[in-house]
Amino acid sequence: MIDHPSEDDLIARYFAPIAGPGGLGLRDDAALLDPPAGCEIVATVDGIVAGVHFFVDDPPESIARKALRVNLSDLAAKGATPQGFLLMLALTPDWRPEWLERFSRALGEDATLYGCPLLGGDTVSTPGPLSISITALGSVPRGQMVARTGVRADDAIYVSGTIGDAALGLAMRRAAGSVCARSEATKQSISESGEDRVDGLLCFARNDGEGCDFLVDRYLHPQPRLALVPVLRENASGGMDVSDGLVGDLTKMLRVSGVTADIDVARIPLSPAAARLTAADPSLLSVALTGGDDYEILASVPQARCAAFEAVAWSAGVPVARIGQARAGEGPPLFRNAQGEAMRFAHGSYSHF
Amino acid sequence: MIDHPSEDDLIARYFAPIAGPGGLGLRDDAALLDPPAGCEIVATVDGIVAGVHFFVDDPPESIARKALRVNLSDLAAKGATPQGFLLMLALTPDWRPEWLERFSRALGEDATLYGCPLLGGDTVSTPGPLSISITALGSVPRGQMVARTGVRADDAIYVSGTIGDAALGLAMRRAAGSVCARSEATKQSISESGEDRVDGLLCFARNDGEGCDFLVDRYLHPQPRLALVPVLRENASGGMDVSDGLVGDLTKMLRVSGVTADIDVARIPLSPAAARLTAADPSLLSVALTGGDDYEILASVPQARCAAFEAVAWSAGVPVARIGQARAGEGPPLFRNAQGEAMRFAHGSYSHF
Repeated sequence: MIDHPSEDDLIARYFAPIAGPGGLGLRDDAALLDPPAGCEIVATVDGIVAGVHFFVDDPPESIARKALRVNLSDLAAKGATPQGFLLMLALTPDWRPEWLERFSRALGEDATLYGCPLLGGDTVSTPGPLSISITALGSVPRGQMVARTGVRADDAIYVSGTIGDAALGLAMRRAAGSVCARSEATKQSISESGEDRVDGLLCFARNDGEGCDFLVDRYLHPQPRLALVPVLRENASGGMDVSDGLVGDLTKMLRVSGVTADIDVARIPLSPAAARLTAADPSLLSVALTGGDDYEILASVPQARCAAFEAVAWSAGVPVARIGQARAGEGPPLFRNAQGEAMRFAHGSYSHF
Repeated sequence: MIDHPSEDDLIARYFAPIAGPGGLGLRDDAALLDPPAGCEIVATVDGIVAGVHFFVDDPPESIARKALRVNLSDLAAKGATPQGFLLMLALTPDWRPEWLERFSRALGEDATLYGCPLLGGDTVSTPGPLSISITALGSVPRGQMVARTGVRADDAIYVSGTIGDAALGLAMRRAAGSVCARSEATKQSISESGEDRVDGLLCFARNDGEGCDFLVDRYLHPQPRLALVPVLRENASGGMDVSDGLVGDLTKMLRVSGVTADIDVARIPLSPAAARLTAADPSLLSVALTGGDDYEILASVPQARCAAFEAVAWSAGVPVARIGQARAGEGPPLFRNAQGEAMRFAHGSYSHF
C-alpha cells in the first residue's frame, strides 16, 4: 500500500490498467470518444450508495459489476451499443487497498466482457457512505434510439428474461437478518405481511438452497441485455429497463407515452426458483412484480413486428415474453391474474424519497 | 411541497424545466447527444461533497454553479465546446424544497449562460453528506483536443486570469471560523504558521472588505474560461485546468509530458486583492500557489505561436500571462522568486486521500 496515496496514485495503481484507449491512460483530466459515423451518443448515469442500493459488505466484485451493469442495462434498453464509461468513486476514509484491488479488477473484467472501456473519472473522499456513480456512453445510428415515450395503442408489451428474482433474493437476504435500507417497497411488503412471510422465506432458503442462491445471485449480478440491442432498434417502438419494479416502471412508460395497457399476470415470466417461492407464498408475487432490481428490458413492439422480434431475440439467446398489450386510455395498466381478476399493488415501485 | 415525492416528481418539478432538447424532457432514462460532424466527444466528471469541497451552508446557487463550472473548466482546458451535462444528485433525507428550487434554478441559469444544457441524470437518497457529481460532455474537431501530455521543451507556460484568489478566499473563511475540510494543503499551511497568520487574515478581512469579498467570491464562483476554447485549440500544445493548486498541477502536467520547466514567480498573475494580502503576509504566497480551486487554464504554447496566443486570448477578454518555459529534463518545475532564489513548497497540491 502507498502511504497517503494521492488521487493520481490511486488512478495509476488501480484504474489506469483497466482503461480503454479513449481514456488516454487516465493521465488527462478528460476522456475522448470518437463516435461511429452517423451515430448519436446515448448517455446515462446511475449511482449506487452503500446501505441504500447495496450491502456494504457485499463482495467488492459484486459492487463493481452492479455499478457498471445497471448503466449498461439502460443503454441496452435504448438500443445503444456501449462505447465507454466514466467512474465517480466516493471513498470513505477507511478504504482498504485489497478492497479497491478487487473492485477495480472486477470492473475491468466487466468492461472487457461488455466491450465498454473505462474512459475516465473522478475519485473523491467522503465522510459518508461509499458511493459509486457511473456515466455510460453508447451509440445509436442517428434517429434510432428506443424512446420511453414511444409506446402506441395496440403495441404488444414484452419483457426479457424473468421478473422478480432480484426482489425475492433481496427479501431473502433481508429475512435472513441482513440490514439494508434498499427497496422500501420490498421492506414494507414484507413487514406488512408480518412474521409469516419472513418464516416462509427462511423456510424456502433452508429447503431450496439452489433456488435461494439463484435469487440472491440475481440481486447481486444484473445481466444487462445487450444482446437485444440490434433487435430492439429494429422492432421496438418504446423501451426502458426494469429497475424500480415492473408495475411501477411500466406505469411510467405508459404515462409518458400517453397510453395504458392490459397485462396478463400469468404470462409474466418467473424463474423456476421464483415460481416455487411464490407458489409456496402467493403474497410474494407482489414483491416480485414491484420490488425492482430486475434489470430486464421492458419494450413495446408493433403487432406487425412481434414475430420478428421474438424470433431474433430468442436466437440472440435472450428469452422474451409477451405479457400484454397497450391500448388507448389513461391511468395505470390493468394487471389481471389467471382468474381474470384485477390485481392491486400497495406499492407500485421503489421510491427514493 | 409534494409529500413523499418520487424521483419522477423531483425531476418533473425541479429539473425538467431546465433540460435541453437532448434531455428529452427528462422523461427517458438516457439522454441523446448528436455530435457535430467531424467532432470527437470530450467527457469529464467531477464530484463535490458537502464538508469536503464546499460548505454545507453555502448558498444553493453557489453550490450549483460550482458543481457545473468545475466541469466546464475541464472542458475549456481541453479546447472542447460544451454540449450538455448529466447530473448525479445524492440528497440527504432532510433536503428542503426551497433549497432544491434555488439549486435547480441557478443550475439552469448557468446551463443557459454557458450553452451547456442539462441532458439527464440520477437522483438518489443518501444518509451521508449531500453530494453532486456532474458529467460534462463537449466536442472538439477530430484530433484537436488539447492534451495534458502535450508540453514540449522550449514551449512557453501560460496561465489565464489570476492565481490563488480562491485559496486565499477559503483561508479567509476558515480563519473566520467556518468549518470545512477542503484543501488539507491550505489548512496545514495556515496551521503551520500558527495564530499569526489567522490574525493577519482576520485583520485583512476587517480592513479590506472589498478585497475579502472578492477573494471569497472567487472561491465560491469559478469562472470557466470557455472564451479560450478556440485559441487553445489553435495554439496550445498542452493544457489542463488548475484545480488542485498551480504548483501541483503544473508538476503533474510536466511529468506526464516528460519535461520540466522554469517558472518566474514574479510573473504569476495575482489579483489586486491577493497582491495586497500576500504583501501583508508574504508567507501566504505559498497558499496562493498551492491551495487550489483556481479553475484557471494552464497551457503550454510553442514559441512561434505565443504572439498569436496572447493577442487572441486578450481580445477574447481573458488575460493570459507567460509565467515560464518548459525544458528537457525530469523532476518538478523550478519556481524562482524575484531574487532568483528557488522556492520550496511544503505541500505541492491538494490531496484527497
